[in-house]
Amino acid sequence: MLDIIAIGFKPEKTHFIIDTKHANLMYPEAIKVAKKLTASSVKASFGLNDSSNVGQLFYTSMQAVPAFLPSIIRHKKMACLIPHAVDQDPHFRLTRDILPKLGYYKPCSIQCSFLPPLTGSSGKMGNTQGAAIHLTDSSKEVERKIKKYAFSGGEATIEEHRKKGGNPDIDVSYQYLRMFFEPSDEKLEKIYNDYKSGKMLTGELKEILIKKINSYLKKHQEKRKKAEKQLSKFIYKE
Amino acid sequence: MLDIIAIGFKPEKTHFIIDTKHANLMYPEAIKVAKKLTASSVKASFGLNDSSNVGQLFYTSMQAVPAFLPSIIRHKKMACLIPHAVDQDPHFRLTRDILPKLGYYKPCSIQCSFLPPLTGSSGKMGNTQGAAIHLTDSSKEVERKIKKYAFSGGEATIEEHRKKGGNPDIDVSYQYLRMFFEPSDEKLEKIYNDYKSGKMLTGELKEILIKKINSYLKKHQEKRKKAEKQLSKFIYKE
Repeated sequence: MLDIIAIGFKPEKTHFIIDTKHANLMYPEAIKVAKKLTASSVKASFGLNDSSNVGQLFYTSMQAVPAFLPSIIRHKKMACLIPHAVDQDPHFRLTRDILPKLGYYKPCSIQCSFLPPLTGSSGKMGNTQGAAIHLTDSSKEVERKIKKYAFSGGEATIEEHRKKGGNPDIDVSYQYLRMFFEPSDEKLEKIYNDYKSGKMLTGELKEILIKKINSYLKKHQEKRKKAEKQLSKFIYKE
Repeated sequence: MLDIIAIGFKPEKTHFIIDTKHANLMYPEAIKVAKKLTASSVKASFGLNDSSNVGQLFYTSMQAVPAFLPSIIRHKKMACLIPHAVDQDPHFRLTRDILPKLGYYKPCSIQCSFLPPLTGSSGKMGNTQGAAIHLTDSSKEVERKIKKYAFSGGEATIEEHRKKGGNPDIDVSYQYLRMFFEPSDEKLEKIYNDYKSGKMLTGELKEILIKKINSYLKKHQEKRKKAEKQLSKFIYKE
């Protein structure tokens, strides 16, 4: 919640709903969804089985509620747009099947891609315990993690790298710059070419990213600190 | 709730918990139970399958909460005795397996038998739609239902009944008197013998039951009316 506030969401337009704190609001609606959702649908969508716990089976019912909660609160049928990462897609696919049966519009989705893990494997960075950069990490911690974990598209030795050049397309530091930390296409192109030609070394590329991340996190962490006092304004009041 | 108050429960010792109204209290605890409860356990206990909805699979998690809610509210590990009808037994069998894993005592049960359906079939009266006596029924309605539906242990004609006698052991009117409406063992024995010998006719036996039920319901309905004003005292306040 603090990170979301720090990013710049406005309290007038932002309401945090916490499943366990807003259960009086959520649960009576969730059970209406649950009635329309069979065990087989959930099992097929999430790869669950009979060893899965009943909380896992039920959870989509709670996850679906924000998609029609505005309609309930404002007492009118409202459309809903849900920005979510791609791993949440199965919840909202199921939700789209059910909501018309309850008299609501199907929700729309904006699906966000993940920053890949530093290690270069597929999936999301948040799942790589220990190797993930946290929004609360110190600049030293960021430096250590990038140097230690960030998967490199460079060659094994400086000599080889100068000769053959690196591969920015698989280099995680370059991908982070491209996806999030370097807004200038021009600068990105220069880094791409310099790295590919062997003019720029992996260590130099990592330094660019470390500076970018630490500059971002410094500002973010200041805003995050201020957000603590704002938190209560953002939590939904029934 | 009105019926329970009318029966004489005291507000100092009685707290109604309503799943949907007390979800802030119940749901955060229910999900702890849900984590320990597999789909296969619930399916086996209730005869559910993959066409069952996820609400049915989750429900035992909510049903289990009152068995340890006193421990949560009073912040100490307390034993819990649950009076419930026999059809609720699977919920509490599952609950007994889980509660020690969450650090609570297993709950104890007092299992109550049902008044059988008027029609003489097995199960509970409440499931025989239309033929069930409701606690809000008028005396005329009670009379009509007993005369029309109460399964009789008598013979087809008065002559035959006088000659062969009736069977109180399968006669629902007699069973209702025995189970609930006639506290005197002496009177019960006389009715039993008179009916069995053929001295008492089915119509006469039904008249006894009708009077007993209507006398009970008259008092109950007066108390039920008064209970309306008391209701808010009984609903649990967090």
